[in-house]
Parts: sequence; C-alpha cells; structure tokens
Amino acid sequence: MNSTLEHLLPDAATHPTTLHQAMRYSLLGGGKRIRPLLCILVSEAAQGHGRDFALHAGCAIECVHTASLILDDLPSMDDAAMRRGRKTTHQEFGEATAILASIGLLNLAYGIIARHAATEPGVKAHALDVLCEAVGSKGMIAGQEIDLHERHRFSEARPIENLNWLKTGVLFVASAHIGALAAGLQPESVNAVKDFAKYVGLAFQTADDLIDQSGSVETIGKDVGQDDGVPTLVSLSGNEAARRSCEENLTYAQESLHRAQLQGAGLQALVDSIFGSKI
Amino acid sequence: MNSTLEHLLPDAATHPTTLHQAMRYSLLGGGKRIRPLLCILVSEAAQGHGRDFALHAGCAIECVHTASLILDDLPSMDDAAMRRGRKTTHQEFGEATAILASIGLLNLAYGIIARHAATEPGVKAHALDVLCEAVGSKGMIAGQEIDLHERHRFSEARPIENLNWLKTGVLFVASAHIGALAAGLQPESVNAVKDFAKYVGLAFQTADDLIDQSGSVETIGKDVGQDDGVPTLVSLSGNEAARRSCEENLTYAQESLHRAQLQGAGLQALVDSIFGSKI
Repeated sequence: MNSTLEHLLPDAATHPTTLHQAMRYSLLGGGKRIRPLLCILVSEAAQGHGRDFALHAGCAIECVHTASLILDDLPSMDDAAMRRGRKTTHQEFGEATAILASIGLLNLAYGIIARHAATEPGVKAHALDVLCEAVGSKGMIAGQEIDLHERHRFSEARPIENLNWLKTGVLFVASAHIGALAAGLQPESVNAVKDFAKYVGLAFQTADDLIDQSGSVETIGKDVGQDDGVPTLVSLSGNEAARRSCEENLTYAQESLHRAQLQGAGLQALVDSIFGSKI
Repeated sequence: MNSTLEHLLPDAATHPTTLHQAMRYSLLGGGKRIRPLLCILVSEAAQGHGRDFALHAGCAIECVHTASLILDDLPSMDDAAMRRGRKTTHQEFGEATAILASIGLLNLAYGIIARHAATEPGVKAHALDVLCEAVGSKGMIAGQEIDLHERHRFSEARPIENLNWLKTGVLFVASAHIGALAAGLQPESVNAVKDFAKYVGLAFQTADDLIDQSGSVETIGKDVGQDDGVPTLVSLSGNEAARRSCEENLTYAQESLHRAQLQGAGLQALVDSIFGSKI
C-alpha cells in the first residue's frame, strides 16, 4: 500500500515543491494504515472483484486521515509539536503550507476515487458520497469543532462517546463501507461490516485514551497528555471500566464480523494486531 | 441560485452550531457568484438537458471558491480583516472554526456533486475529476502556496500570469467545463467554452489588480492594498498596458464564445455585467 500511496502523490520535485514535500512528509511518514487496511481487507474477505479500487480508495482514506491529523495539530487547534515520532507538519513547513498540504491531501483523496478508471461510475459516486458524509460538517469536521469548543464542558459519558464516534468511528465505518461497495456486497453484509468497523473504532478510541494518559512521547510518537484537563471516557469512568468497555466492543465487533459471513481471517488478524499490544 | 445555496447548507441550528453558522456566514454573505453563473449559463446556452445539475454543480463551485477565500484571509496567509463588506470569517468566528468551515465547504462541494440523484454517475465522476484537478496541489492550492512564498521574487510577467491562471483561471475554466459536461456538449464546443472561460478569467484577474491599487475598502468591500510591495501585472507593466491586456482577453473570449456555436447571449450579458463597470 505504501508504494501505491507514494505513486498517487505528486513527486517532491513537482512545483510548488514545498507544498508537495509537506504532503509527502505528512502522508509517507509512517502511521499504522488501519483505515486503508480495513477497506482493503473487507474487499478481500468478500473474495469478489474490486480489490484494486479498494486499494486506491483505501489510499484515499489514508489521505483524508492524514489531512485531519495535520489540522488537529495546528497552533489554532491542539498546537502539537510531535506526530508519528517527528515534528508536526506546521513545525516543519510553517502553518500556511501545512494548511494547504492538508487541503491538498483531502482534495487528492476525492480525485483518486473519481478517476479510478476500471471502476463503474455508480460505485465511485456512491463511495464519494459515503466519504463526503464521513468527513463533513456533521462528521469528522463536527468532531474537531466539538473537541475544541465543547468537550471541556462534558461531564457525562454520552457526549464523549458521540465525540469519539465523530472523531474516529465515522471514518472507520466509511472505510469498511467503501471496501464493501468495492466488492459489491449485499446490503445485509454491508451493514454487518459497518457494525464491525464501528465497534473496532470505539474500542480503538478508548484504547488511545488509555495510552494518552499512561504512555510517553517516545513510545507512542506523538504529544502525550494532550487530554490533560479535558474529560475522556478514561477520566470519567476510570482505567478499569475503560478497559472493560474496550473488550466489550471487541466482542461486539467479532459478532458483527461473523454476521457478515465473509472469509474474515484477515480482518480478525488486523484487530489482533491493533489491540494485541494495546489493552 | 442563492436559495439553492441556502438549501444545500445545513441550517444554522444544526450541531455544532458555530461551525454551521460560520459556513453560512461565509457562503451566504454576498459575492458576485460569477463562477456558478458561468457553469449555469454554459449549460443554458447549450439548450440541452442537465440544467439542474449545472445549478447544483455551480453551487458546489461557489462553495469551493468561498472555501478558498476563507483560507486566503487567514492570519497565516493574507491576514485580512474585511471581505465582502464584513469581517472575515476568522475575525468573526476564530481561526480554528474558520479553517474547519473552509474544509466543510470544500467537502460539501464534492458531496453536492456526488449525490445529485438525477445525473448519470459517469457525468458526476467526470465533473468531480475536473473539480479536483482545478482545486488540487497543481491548481488553486498551488496558486495560494506560490502567492505566499514565491510571488515577492517575481520580476517578469510570465510567472505572474501563471499565478493568475492558478488563482483564478483554473476555477473559471472548471466552472464552464462542468456546465458543458452537464449539457452533454461535443468536445469541440467544450474546448471553445473552456477557452472562453480562460480569457474571461485572465481579464477578471487583471481588472481585480487594477481595482486593488486604485479602489477603497468601502467601494470594493475587502482589504485594499493587499498587493502593496508584491508584483502584479499592473505594477510591472503599468495601468495602461494592464487595461489593454484586459480588453484583448475579452476580445479573445468573444471569439471563443462564437466558436462554441451556442446561444451565448446570457454568457455575453454576464461578461458585460462583470466588466461594464470595471474597465
């Protein structure tokens, strides 16, 4: 997948070079590639056609995810210095270029899907619709706005769960959904696969909160303690309850995967690899 | 068109309300709507089908244009206080919400096109491809990066013309192109219509530079003198030559429109209304 990502990006010598270097620095600087893997593995588990589209759509989703990380880190948002073990994009390239690189990646994502030649236009338009909904002002963008301006007031689990859904869940679900569209799955299987991704996403966000309050910048590669002073599921319910909620969500995920009736070994292996060391 | 724009935006009470208010403030706060008019009038001039798609795609293009204005005005970019006769979006809503509103509008644009139900998916995918190319890191985003980090070094007309092309021309051409796709024009007519839009865009940017160095904030509604100290076609060649170049481009535009063999009265009226008072 990394070679496809690299191939889809303009090379570093393309004018304006600083912009393209910033896009490459942000996208190719590591990351666990969980969302594209979800998209690709769902399409493979369906053993249908459309794997090349799932690979490209997965790369597009990683562009979206990276674009969101660049924004989250900006001085006017989380003001973070480290990400994926290196300086954040604005620290390395300046704020204006970081913002433009983020938008360049988001826009590239839509272009990758729109121009995938071998895929039926109806599938591409549907995939684009799903991705736009996930990113939009009632999806990830809402999540970031709420995180910045409302989260500090939260005193109950419900609004935090909703925030986790917007910040993490919607793109996990969109990744699996687009993989299912690529493979031409039947509606019941599509829904089961989306449920699977939802529960994996919820578990993932809780695990991330557990790490944020216990890890160090060396082991996790980004600023820690970013959540100091803002409520999380961990700060509200405590470590043990958060750990238990994480395990419950993983059980629900497994049940959903079973319901999807796919060759799900690859997806199960992905879940094991994400959570094996986390909880 | 304004009622369609208003209808396509989430209303101001949609959570998170500040984000949606910022999107509405930026998009519905005026503007000449030249790009959507280009898109709509091209499709009407072709007297074909696809007018509703051209209307929606035109609204999407206005979302893209507004998103670019919000970014241009940011503290890390032009640091402008006024736009369309009111405070810029970051002055009114804060920097983080302004950035998110800009991305929300860009993303909404793609969603509007992707989910237009009555249009053939192949036309939508083609239109999305055209729009992504125009916005992308070799299009408008490149233009903004070059404007911020390279323009101060320019001493010849050529790189400034290229910058004007990226900052204004590409979206003008994409607007006309998408209008032509909506109407199902033949390739020769599509090319002539794109040429028309290119020349109108070049004339428009030169006229804008003429105004920037002679207007006042009251008459044009945005910060003036933004170009002080950076080279423009006007500063390099002088008022008279810029005015002449503008008129030449309008002549080329008329010739291209004639070549497109459309019922071009609406498009000609648009050009007259844009430039009647400008040059």
